[in-house]
Amino acid sequence: MSWESIAAKKRQALKDAIPAEWIIPAEIFPPEDQLDVTGFPKESGFFTDRELEITSTPAQAILKYLSSGQWTVEEVTRTFCKTAAVAQQLTNCLSEILFDRAMAQAKELDAYYKETGKTKGPFHGLPISIKDNFNLIGVDATVGFASLVDDPAIYNSTLVDLLLGAGAVLYCKTNVPTGMLAKAPERLVTDKYLAMMIAESVNNVFGRTVNPRNRKLTSGGSSGGESSLIAFGGSRIGVGTDIDFPYLGGSLRIPAACTGIFTIRPSFGRFPNFQTRSGLAGQEAVHSVNGPMAKTLEEITLWASTVVGQQPWLIDPKCLPIPWRQVEMKKPLKIGVLHHDGLVTPTPPVARALSETVQKLKNAGHEVVTWAPREHKELLTLLSTFFVADGGKSVRKLLEPTGEPFRPEMKAYEESSELGVHEMWQLHLKRNALCKSYLDRWNETGIDAVLCPATPYSTVEHGKFAYVGYTGVFNVLDYPAVSFPCGVKADKELDKAYVNHQALSDLDAQIQNDYSAETVHGMPVNLQLVGRRLEDESALAMTDVILKAVAAMNGTV
Amino acid sequence: MSWESIAAKKRQALKDAIPAEWIIPAEIFPPEDQLDVTGFPKESGFFTDRELEITSTPAQAILKYLSSGQWTVEEVTRTFCKTAAVAQQLTNCLSEILFDRAMAQAKELDAYYKETGKTKGPFHGLPISIKDNFNLIGVDATVGFASLVDDPAIYNSTLVDLLLGAGAVLYCKTNVPTGMLAKAPERLVTDKYLAMMIAESVNNVFGRTVNPRNRKLTSGGSSGGESSLIAFGGSRIGVGTDIDFPYLGGSLRIPAACTGIFTIRPSFGRFPNFQTRSGLAGQEAVHSVNGPMAKTLEEITLWASTVVGQQPWLIDPKCLPIPWRQVEMKKPLKIGVLHHDGLVTPTPPVARALSETVQKLKNAGHEVVTWAPREHKELLTLLSTFFVADGGKSVRKLLEPTGEPFRPEMKAYEESSELGVHEMWQLHLKRNALCKSYLDRWNETGIDAVLCPATPYSTVEHGKFAYVGYTGVFNVLDYPAVSFPCGVKADKELDKAYVNHQALSDLDAQIQNDYSAETVHGMPVNLQLVGRRLEDESALAMTDVILKAVAAMNGTV
Repeated sequence: MSWESIAAKKRQALKDAIPAEWIIPAEIFPPEDQLDVTGFPKESGFFTDRELEITSTPAQAILKYLSSGQWTVEEVTRTFCKTAAVAQQLTNCLSEILFDRAMAQAKELDAYYKETGKTKGPFHGLPISIKDNFNLIGVDATVGFASLVDDPAIYNSTLVDLLLGAGAVLYCKTNVPTGMLAKAPERLVTDKYLAMMIAESVNNVFGRTVNPRNRKLTSGGSSGGESSLIAFGGSRIGVGTDIDFPYLGGSLRIPAACTGIFTIRPSFGRFPNFQTRSGLAGQEAVHSVNGPMAKTLEEITLWASTVVGQQPWLIDPKCLPIPWRQVEMKKPLKIGVLHHDGLVTPTPPVARALSETVQKLKNAGHEVVTWAPREHKELLTLLSTFFVADGGKSVRKLLEPTGEPFRPEMKAYEESSELGVHEMWQLHLKRNALCKSYLDRWNETGIDAVLCPATPYSTVEHGKFAYVGYTGVFNVLDYPAVSFPCGVKADKELDKAYVNHQALSDLDAQIQNDYSAETVHGMPVNLQLVGRRLEDESALAMTDVILKAVAAMNGTV
Repeated sequence: MSWESIAAKKRQALKDAIPAEWIIPAEIFPPEDQLDVTGFPKESGFFTDRELEITSTPAQAILKYLSSGQWTVEEVTRTFCKTAAVAQQLTNCLSEILFDRAMAQAKELDAYYKETGKTKGPFHGLPISIKDNFNLIGVDATVGFASLVDDPAIYNSTLVDLLLGAGAVLYCKTNVPTGMLAKAPERLVTDKYLAMMIAESVNNVFGRTVNPRNRKLTSGGSSGGESSLIAFGGSRIGVGTDIDFPYLGGSLRIPAACTGIFTIRPSFGRFPNFQTRSGLAGQEAVHSVNGPMAKTLEEITLWASTVVGQQPWLIDPKCLPIPWRQVEMKKPLKIGVLHHDGLVTPTPPVARALSETVQKLKNAGHEVVTWAPREHKELLTLLSTFFVADGGKSVRKLLEPTGEPFRPEMKAYEESSELGVHEMWQLHLKRNALCKSYLDRWNETGIDAVLCPATPYSTVEHGKFAYVGYTGVFNVLDYPAVSFPCGVKADKELDKAYVNHQALSDLDAQIQNDYSAETVHGMPVNLQLVGRRLEDESALAMTDVILKAVAAMNGTV
């Protein structure tokens, strides 16, 4: 069978997995030119008030209602399955539909509760969506490669074991890009490596996931199926990965930014990430991690503390035995602000969001200092080198069985040459020296966190995401980094004052040139808060402090 | 200058750094055929009672006397310098002599104390010896290569910064082997990799360090200068490394075993190891660590808790922010005993020591189960492959500048071929799978620790150390492992019952054949206790439980 036939068959199977009753009737199906579909659940009449109540309830409250017996797992699960089914029809966000399995699991959990009066674990009955690259026995993890279709997992990822053990209901997997390391068109390239990564969820098997807030725009990648589903309301908490597959450096924070939701790229070793499918399996120079995505910071913290509370180090040999710690926030905070990274300036909405947030932090009494991007260019060059260090052999092995072509975004893999181990060791040394330099500078400055753009964009039209430098550096450093909506939305009038007239590079010029104030008008803007390595608790707590400062200044507290 | 001249000059400089007053007079100099020189300090009359009192006082008591002002740093430092000078003349254990520097530091510390009434830090005034590969500004770190002579460090290792900051006095560096990965003579080789590592401290620059308990025998390696110095009494606490340089996998535990002292090979990330000189710089597939060596377990724990108490993660980007934790010991323990690793059986003294210790543990009420070496051979093959993965390029670059030849022990480097990064990634995956398998098995069995030989030997004649498999596996797994004298000494009569007549391999046959009951008679025997990854506190605490059980059964408690 050709790769095209394999892919078509897989897409049909995905379509067929949606029960007839959840197919959106033609008469209420939003027209293609309706960009924002997030209002569909409330406005279409396709959902009951009860269903809307359930999907708009934060995870911690859902868990409370389930553990007190007020709600049943079956009802909650069916509601999220239905909403995810609708999200899929409007945004193409799913890769695997597991509704039957989920409903069976839900009934088991309800029966267990009825019989024992007890919950199965801290996630009892919570539907959790997972990115396609997590392994779940009996289910494909194609990560968008035709050669991996009909190759169901024969073991669970350690995280899947943990979630199932804690009572979570797994009801769908979400779409990803096949190959993230795309070389941008030559016109964009200043430095060979800087522009070669595109962060959008598109592949040869499932096609492209779109942003439910504006379907002309990307929901980001690589966890872009996940961000789209959550922003639509089809999941309260989803799990994505950052680095694991496809290779990028921002695979959680970028899609969160593109859709205006929350995530944390944790330090390596906090959340279990073992036995996850990877396109560059065995690459360890920059570690892959997974992390939660959700509409609220509280749900992110809930997921993190619950997962770590399950002692994942007992099942994952790479996990660190560090419990989820209570942090006392010192006040005021000293925050280093990175206005630009020396390579690409943020587009006007992001520049304004950062500037306004800094002002609000100052008003709230926090100390703000400028943080220079001294090591950033070198860190990014390393990051890109690490990804193609095998000369694209790993990706080639995934394409060859079906004759599937390299997508244009994967050109960097196609054209790279394999490094020898000795050269790789020298790159490790370089990376280590940069990590030491960053740490020393952090200590000397005495900052608590770095605040910076998550991407140069609020979000951007399909095919135009051209820079992942703001997130990628922190993958190499292994610092925890929160991507969060800062409350500012792109505004074609207000943003005018922030148009950048002094490009830092050709790539920067191109990105600023591609910026369309009209197109992104109204899109939420995320920023990124970065903490010390392995102080993930602190990174989340400081984000809360910032959100409170922002809310207070907005007069909403 | 030829490498021979460079080396000769360096050796002369080392000799000249010993003050005339500390040169052992010819009339009391032990004859070459006097094997045990550990009695020299007490019996020669070369040391005062006061000096003997100081060197026989454990570190924690020394620190107490210093912090209460009862002793001066100057006196303590001078005493350890003198003893180390004598150790050097009898065992060739040092690589750098820093007595002037140490005395100046001692005077400063005394002045500081006199002026402020306070100590400089938790190691105030304690002389600590360090292995040659630690960097100390202005001092060579040749690690036995002629090309690195007269190339003084321009920065400190992070551990050196930490020790100096805590008030420790650094007074000498200790000898190492140049290239540990020696291919054993063909007659020893069953598997290409299993026998290629020799763990003795000998190099082209400083020559060979010998065991003060029996100078015909090795003090082990690679931290064999350190173990020799400590066993002689020239240092209370020394710091060695395991993996860092030269490449081995047991560089702390083997020399501790050969000399009957204590050490812990910690989990990676507990003690700072940054900016340490390495012969295979940038190799990270198996991480290098450093750890303390001492005559008592209490001094090991003192060092570990103090170093971690200094929050090394603030200065070392690879360190983990895990404080030194108090552990509650469950009683009784469940201990998995590895009688042999399926490849090489321990020689009779070690077999007897393990057997007797197991009996004592059972008598003390602990549960003992057999632990199978299921993954050991594969783990060892990986370990050896990782070391030569750069095709010996790193070592070659250290030899070429002076035309220094590969030593016979370094043949594996000389003959290896460089791997490509893609192949390396596959090896990472293999290693990860083995780590997961080991962890799962540990969980299923429910053991608290593994007890096994530290090496097949009590110790062995120079040039005959042929197997590091018992230690190396735990480097790959990154488990904390304590090497400790179990109270049993080699005994040519008692050990007869443990002669092995069923060799597991040709290598095993050769090792058993090389065993000389007569030669090792009286040598202490170490065993190895292995705990869960990053539970270093627990590994030390369990060793204490075992020592108490042993002592109780011996009637000494």
